[in-house]
Amino acid sequence: MHELITSKANEKIKLAVRVRDSAKARREEGLFFTEGARLCVDAAGSVPVKTLFYTEKAAEKYRDEVAFLTEKSEEVYLVSGAAADRLSDTFSPQGIFCVCKTLDKSDNIGIIYSKSKLIALENIQDPANLGAVIRTAEALGVGGAVLCGCCDVYNPKAQRAAMGSLLRLPTATVDDLPQALAEFAERGFTTLASTPDASADDITKTDLGVKTICVIGNEGNGVTDLTAQSCAKRVRVPMGGRAESLNASMAAAIIMWELMR
Amino acid sequence: MHELITSKANEKIKLAVRVRDSAKARREEGLFFTEGARLCVDAAGSVPVKTLFYTEKAAEKYRDEVAFLTEKSEEVYLVSGAAADRLSDTFSPQGIFCVCKTLDKSDNIGIIYSKSKLIALENIQDPANLGAVIRTAEALGVGGAVLCGCCDVYNPKAQRAAMGSLLRLPTATVDDLPQALAEFAERGFTTLASTPDASADDITKTDLGVKTICVIGNEGNGVTDLTAQSCAKRVRVPMGGRAESLNASMAAAIIMWELMR
Repeated sequence: MHELITSKANEKIKLAVRVRDSAKARREEGLFFTEGARLCVDAAGSVPVKTLFYTEKAAEKYRDEVAFLTEKSEEVYLVSGAAADRLSDTFSPQGIFCVCKTLDKSDNIGIIYSKSKLIALENIQDPANLGAVIRTAEALGVGGAVLCGCCDVYNPKAQRAAMGSLLRLPTATVDDLPQALAEFAERGFTTLASTPDASADDITKTDLGVKTICVIGNEGNGVTDLTAQSCAKRVRVPMGGRAESLNASMAAAIIMWELMR
Repeated sequence: MHELITSKANEKIKLAVRVRDSAKARREEGLFFTEGARLCVDAAGSVPVKTLFYTEKAAEKYRDEVAFLTEKSEEVYLVSGAAADRLSDTFSPQGIFCVCKTLDKSDNIGIIYSKSKLIALENIQDPANLGAVIRTAEALGVGGAVLCGCCDVYNPKAQRAAMGSLLRLPTATVDDLPQALAEFAERGFTTLASTPDASADDITKTDLGVKTICVIGNEGNGVTDLTAQSCAKRVRVPMGGRAESLNASMAAAIIMWELMR
């Protein structure tokens, strides 16, 4: 039987909540928080798990998942309903929570250079959008993502929307996207900026090249001028209907689909 | 100056809330509820407005929109903060609300038959998904949508996600989708069912025909067997990556994009 935690003020619980809520704490501790049977199992397939917390109910309902996670975790605690309520970030908690170790991404840029189809995400601040775009990128076979000015990939909302893909798809964070794009161009990549502007090239009629990186911008403001100017081409999704109706994540899905087609 | 309503129990307020919350009330009254400057203005461009409610603050902040809506509405009321709180269905209400008349869709099936690229939506129960798919359909130039077993198109969440497109794109509701598809086939349409099954035809390698209707199913369960069997072909989005990662609305966007490409 695992040790039981009943207090919301327990140090293990407090650490979990801290890395759940604060990007700074995640960076400092090298840890992040994930919740729910499916997401915890997904995470345990990609990163080391430091701590598993589960409720008695969860142990009954998610027997296989709890057994698998117990095997994978450095330390395991049974938690009371009150402690689980403190940990939970969702409306209908399943009673399974993991504190995981963040990935060392220092080698990722090398892996990313070796791929042929990439995206760069600029200033995507909404965690759910970041997760959804990365999830779609992985599904379509995009090789990796370069992030600049985006929200923290370990944000619980981003992890939830990504369904594990943020831990599987190689990502690298850069501070200067035009500079990074210049380095991709030197390595033979065609650099593209996605935009709704009618003056951009129709993506179905553009030579996308063998190695391509396409920048997708912020929901509201799109790709910054400086970044767009540093790209070889500006591309758009041509539309038969009311262009203003296509939301940014749908446009990103279609751009990535054309990139991989 | 318009008549001021301060009571949450006012009959006009109660009717608005009833059609906001109940699909049955919407059907019986032939009315629906919409909230926010942009959505109300969009609705007023497509349907007759019965009642406009606005707060004093909204009249200052959204002067042009309130003036336009006042012009378009049969009756107009100024409402107090308390009455506006009762009307509002959102986290940050703008203080503009309309009760609109539902469209007479009895002629829509005739309009829909005249189009060449269509979608059919089966059992989509989540209003936000329904709205998002219709929004994308309109953006890409799909000619219309046939609905079977879906949630009410006048649901406020559906209207919000659709950004007016549910009032502009011709839609028709049918009770028997296989029967409706047979009628489309008789009129020369190629009938397709979208599915993630690996055994289905790759949509990029399928002759979609000149006139096409493609069925998109429920998020969790996909197109029903009976409906899939009544279609000429089953098509899928081919994926380079982890297929399970593509969510239904992204898959629908790519299917519609290929339909219109």
